[in-house]
Amino acid sequence: MVATQRVAVLGASGYAGGELVRLLHEHPSFEVAFLGGKGSVGRSLVASQPHLAGLPAAEMLMQDMEPASIAAAADLVFSALPNGSSAHLAPAILDAGSRVIDLAGDFRLDADAYPAWYGFEHPASQWLGAAAYGLSELFADRIADASLVANPGCFATAAILGCAPVVAAGLADPGAIRVDGKTGVSGAGRAALESTSFGATEDSIRPYRFPNHQHTPEIEQGVMRATGQAVSVLFVPHLVPAVRGVVTTAYLSAATGATTEQLTECLAAAYTGRPFVRVLPPGEMVDAKRTRGSNMIELQGVVDARTGTVVVVAALDNLIKGAAGQAIQNANLLYGLPEETGLPTTGVYP
Amino acid sequence: MVATQRVAVLGASGYAGGELVRLLHEHPSFEVAFLGGKGSVGRSLVASQPHLAGLPAAEMLMQDMEPASIAAAADLVFSALPNGSSAHLAPAILDAGSRVIDLAGDFRLDADAYPAWYGFEHPASQWLGAAAYGLSELFADRIADASLVANPGCFATAAILGCAPVVAAGLADPGAIRVDGKTGVSGAGRAALESTSFGATEDSIRPYRFPNHQHTPEIEQGVMRATGQAVSVLFVPHLVPAVRGVVTTAYLSAATGATTEQLTECLAAAYTGRPFVRVLPPGEMVDAKRTRGSNMIELQGVVDARTGTVVVVAALDNLIKGAAGQAIQNANLLYGLPEETGLPTTGVYP
Amino acid sequence: MVATQRVAVLGASGYAGGELVRLLHEHPSFEVAFLGGKGSVGRSLVASQPHLAGLPAAEMLMQDMEPASIAAAADLVFSALPNGSSAHLAPAILDAGSRVIDLAGDFRLDADAYPAWYGFEHPASQWLGAAAYGLSELFADRIADASLVANPGCFATAAILGCAPVVAAGLADPGAIRVDGKTGVSGAGRAALESTSFGATEDSIRPYRFPNHQHTPEIEQGVMRATGQAVSVLFVPHLVPAVRGVVTTAYLSAATGATTEQLTECLAAAYTGRPFVRVLPPGEMVDAKRTRGSNMIELQGVVDARTGTVVVVAALDNLIKGAAGQAIQNANLLYGLPEETGLPTTGVYP
Amino acid sequence: MVATQRVAVLGASGYAGGELVRLLHEHPSFEVAFLGGKGSVGRSLVASQPHLAGLPAAEMLMQDMEPASIAAAADLVFSALPNGSSAHLAPAILDAGSRVIDLAGDFRLDADAYPAWYGFEHPASQWLGAAAYGLSELFADRIADASLVANPGCFATAAILGCAPVVAAGLADPGAIRVDGKTGVSGAGRAALESTSFGATEDSIRPYRFPNHQHTPEIEQGVMRATGQAVSVLFVPHLVPAVRGVVTTAYLSAATGATTEQLTECLAAAYTGRPFVRVLPPGEMVDAKRTRGSNMIELQGVVDARTGTVVVVAALDNLIKGAAGQAIQNANLLYGLPEETGLPTTGVYP
Repeated sequence: MVATQRVAVLGASGYAGGELVRLLHEHPSFEVAFLGGKGSVGRSLVASQPHLAGLPAAEMLMQDMEPASIAAAADLVFSALPNGSSAHLAPAILDAGSRVIDLAGDFRLDADAYPAWYGFEHPASQWLGAAAYGLSELFADRIADASLVANPGCFATAAILGCAPVVAAGLADPGAIRVDGKTGVSGAGRAALESTSFGATEDSIRPYRFPNHQHTPEIEQGVMRATGQAVSVLFVPHLVPAVRGVVTTAYLSAATGATTEQLTECLAAAYTGRPFVRVLPPGEMVDAKRTRGSNMIELQGVVDARTGTVVVVAALDNLIKGAAGQAIQNANLLYGLPEETGLPTTGVYP
Repeated sequence: MVATQRVAVLGASGYAGGELVRLLHEHPSFEVAFLGGKGSVGRSLVASQPHLAGLPAAEMLMQDMEPASIAAAADLVFSALPNGSSAHLAPAILDAGSRVIDLAGDFRLDADAYPAWYGFEHPASQWLGAAAYGLSELFADRIADASLVANPGCFATAAILGCAPVVAAGLADPGAIRVDGKTGVSGAGRAALESTSFGATEDSIRPYRFPNHQHTPEIEQGVMRATGQAVSVLFVPHLVPAVRGVVTTAYLSAATGATTEQLTECLAAAYTGRPFVRVLPPGEMVDAKRTRGSNMIELQGVVDARTGTVVVVAALDNLIKGAAGQAIQNANLLYGLPEETGLPTTGVYP
Repeated sequence: MVATQRVAVLGASGYAGGELVRLLHEHPSFEVAFLGGKGSVGRSLVASQPHLAGLPAAEMLMQDMEPASIAAAADLVFSALPNGSSAHLAPAILDAGSRVIDLAGDFRLDADAYPAWYGFEHPASQWLGAAAYGLSELFADRIADASLVANPGCFATAAILGCAPVVAAGLADPGAIRVDGKTGVSGAGRAALESTSFGATEDSIRPYRFPNHQHTPEIEQGVMRATGQAVSVLFVPHLVPAVRGVVTTAYLSAATGATTEQLTECLAAAYTGRPFVRVLPPGEMVDAKRTRGSNMIELQGVVDARTGTVVVVAALDNLIKGAAGQAIQNANLLYGLPEETGLPTTGVYP
Repeated sequence: MVATQRVAVLGASGYAGGELVRLLHEHPSFEVAFLGGKGSVGRSLVASQPHLAGLPAAEMLMQDMEPASIAAAADLVFSALPNGSSAHLAPAILDAGSRVIDLAGDFRLDADAYPAWYGFEHPASQWLGAAAYGLSELFADRIADASLVANPGCFATAAILGCAPVVAAGLADPGAIRVDGKTGVSGAGRAALESTSFGATEDSIRPYRFPNHQHTPEIEQGVMRATGQAVSVLFVPHLVPAVRGVVTTAYLSAATGATTEQLTECLAAAYTGRPFVRVLPPGEMVDAKRTRGSNMIELQGVVDARTGTVVVVAALDNLIKGAAGQAIQNANLLYGLPEETGLPTTGVYP
């Protein structure tokens, strides 16, 4: 057991921030020592996260996000701020000697991708090369030594973990991967929007922001780095009336002769011994609800020989495996802890 | 105005049956004269459909489904029974001289497709050739003269109306169409199942019954008949936590140089003057919720030049445009009425 | 049939405003001639209400709410603005000769009630005495001659229609009525709030704003006017994860010897021949879902002899019988039309 | 720390059974040694509870519920069977020397209450006097020594914990307590019913089974035992579109001069130091969602001086504090452990 590490949570009043605080309380080696935010500075965390009442962190005050203060207070900083914030904030924290795990998209891509996919010029592109892409199941080696980890996006986590082994094994053509995503509303964050109001969401099923969703290049890059092959991905996300839950359904052209059994074995072999990946046997179907409240991802592979298609479906809880849980999994790797330390593997059902 | 026609509704205690009775009450030319069912014979309709209280039909008794009695009572029979029932029942009704619009899958395919996709040998395959496939926007000519109409499936309606014009115009390759479907639970009918219970459905997102869903060959056949081209379709449906609403997202390989503008124009041109099809301009996104309670379908086409993909998204209310409303639209064609007669074009929102 | 009347809808971009436009399109005697709002002036209605596409009114532009222009354009004005707006706006419209039906609370109470329950001094208290309280089933006589109608609140409609006949018949003590309300989120309007976001609402059940909810004095006043008896009401509303639907459960001390049968008969007798009230027989339970999309209210009365309590439960669709539908019902009375003209009596189920 | 106890879970394939297994896995002193059920005997637990995959108990086989085998396998038996089962089963288990915590209503009342409220003659009435009523916050002394604990109903837990201190303190009249309940569907269990299907539940708000709901006498008895005063309770439960969550809103006549501050202090004093009760300060409102996934109950008291009413609102997660969590809390008391051992105090939000 390592000594207890002091950690900071930035964006603690949001959904992912709240989950970070809740999960960190269960963790034996991390202790929340700093809470940062924008709108609620000077108030205690419990004012914005009343469900956390009773936790020690709930009575801590939200503080201004001054890099020096953050670094003084915490060895490790979880940043759960909206896209575009940590690109400005993280470098000074890193320079002051703390490590950073960024849950936004600010350190996931190459510099030239930011204007097109995120709408801004990256202000600290010198850090992009140093950032480890925190998909623990695929890139654990690089994460362990990093001072800056780019925690993957929820959709990207699902799609990359599903597709990378299949492409690597040559069971499908990486040339034209179409990923159809479905998500609940919590991925859009906690800010009040008409589009994610209850009135607009009940019985609503709708695509959004395609073909320009910012997880598109992240999926391409993730599969490429994991397989060494060039890939081309189209990603079409859809909003459905759920709070948590992401499902990605990836369509690839099957290699000749590929079978569902091979596909299943390929996925199972890729994640043997990994505590958070459940590969379903042929005939069973993934369900995002089963993963709710846990750090699990469910994977299912099917070859449709009739049409020559490989389908890989992945399901996870976007706030845990797709955000706060995966961030803690990365933190475990940073400190040499078993990656499952302090993380739930069982969903809260129903 | 034609004279009032007496109609029968079989399966009146189900979801689609209830919508048929409700919508027929608003129709100027049809009058419910017979209600048939299995479980509730001898009870008034209102016992199983209490929201219909006050309608004349609500006080009518549910009757045994004796073909001769049905045909004696009604000139036109809407059959909203589960798959596999009307294949046995409809022929005798037709022989007795009434017309039949079947909302199940019993008359949509060729005989040799039934064992594989529906799990039964068709008992009345001689009627399959005579049945008109009731996708009004594409096959109105054939429907007008038919005595038997196979009302399309909800997913098939969405996918075919979206893909057929695009394939016909040569904007995409018909060789490998992948259709990703999302649906609320009402498409599974009213019978109590654990899988569609509230407990199992809230926050659940999950694929089901793929790649063997029975709408797969129906989509292939529909696009083929509409375009004259051979097509290959993989269909992967997903259940999401909604009651009504179907969205299909179809992925096709784009023809060289195809653009979103061309795609939009192609869809708009195909349905000019058709009252129930709304083609969205580039940049707008379909939403199943907007169609809820109406007979509308929303269509949206996007070309992703980067990956060479055509995406066609369609949204509708599965109980209306995907079932009861489309059946009445077909009935209008059968009787020479304007196809929009008695049908709602405005959704009930929010 | 009276001649077609030109009507205005103020607040047309909100939920109740959208329902007004949708329902007015089905009405044989009213034609939308003016659309007013605050945030969307100069844009067509369809931009904020895309589900209304295809209706003539959908292409009309939203206009500034200038009283003279409104009165010039419309004989009758439906005001679906937030509380506090029509108190300033309606007088000038009335002075200019048009009639007004106000869906907010601005003309429902006496002047001295406004500071305490609504938080403002009423700026046009001279109009309060002239306003007819538009609960059609109880006060039709006064409504018919009014130039200003205060359309009742959703909770108040349910509670008053349930309790008034029981108090009038002496079956319960009017001295201490406790009304427990449950509502979906659409009653809070369309503005984006964190409290009515999907994330905050799924699986949330919670009381709000009691014992100071502004429908409290409205219920007291309504029952008093209908019965001539002094009443005392406590009202506790709760938010539940629904879009539409209001249920009020009223608890009263039973008169000695009162029975469920007497209670049911009393309710049935009070609303004999009224098209929108359904009184359930003993043993059946109301359900807000059955009224969804209709102007119906369901009532159920139970005497619990063991504890000496009368329970009256009422259910309705807050956007229709609790807002837009009831407003049109009042408009029918104003123009001497049958009160059910153009209004749906059948819910959209499921 | 006591030695690890072997426990049995009967009804392990249901919702409460699944929560028991999940929570017991987190408990340091209990180990699941036997799983019993009716429909799934011979299959592993994971077949009916796939979200538990990975837990040791998930691979255990469901077994026939033979009392001798159960008692041989387990020192403590949690019975999460439907009402009416454990009355037959528990006595033999108790005779064989194991302790039983029954989550159904079979041992909560006196013998003469069963025919009227549960519809059966109690087959083992000699055990009723020996059963401790397991509302830990009020009756911990009696529970510690019991061999049979009747775990309270979800509604009863909420209503009794809210009302008992208020009645005991003389702040309200115990003569006519009206309890209005709201619940999600999981309280009805996992069996597929049309009434709790997603189609019937979305946007449904409806009362049920009143005034005869079986928690009525349980609330009366609980408040009486805790206060020594005769009380009279009417209970009206309502179903709302949620999975988890119970809110009870109790209406009592206020004692002269009682204030909200006194009420709040009274509740706070009653539960000082109890880990699972959160009493809200005046002005804050309870929310069932905040308790979801935790063993917490939120309480809020308001005096409405205008109408002379005390309102006590309580919110909890019906599957945890209202079932599985409270059962483990009782088990902790049985074994002399701190009552919070192994139980979550933080909800999973959103």
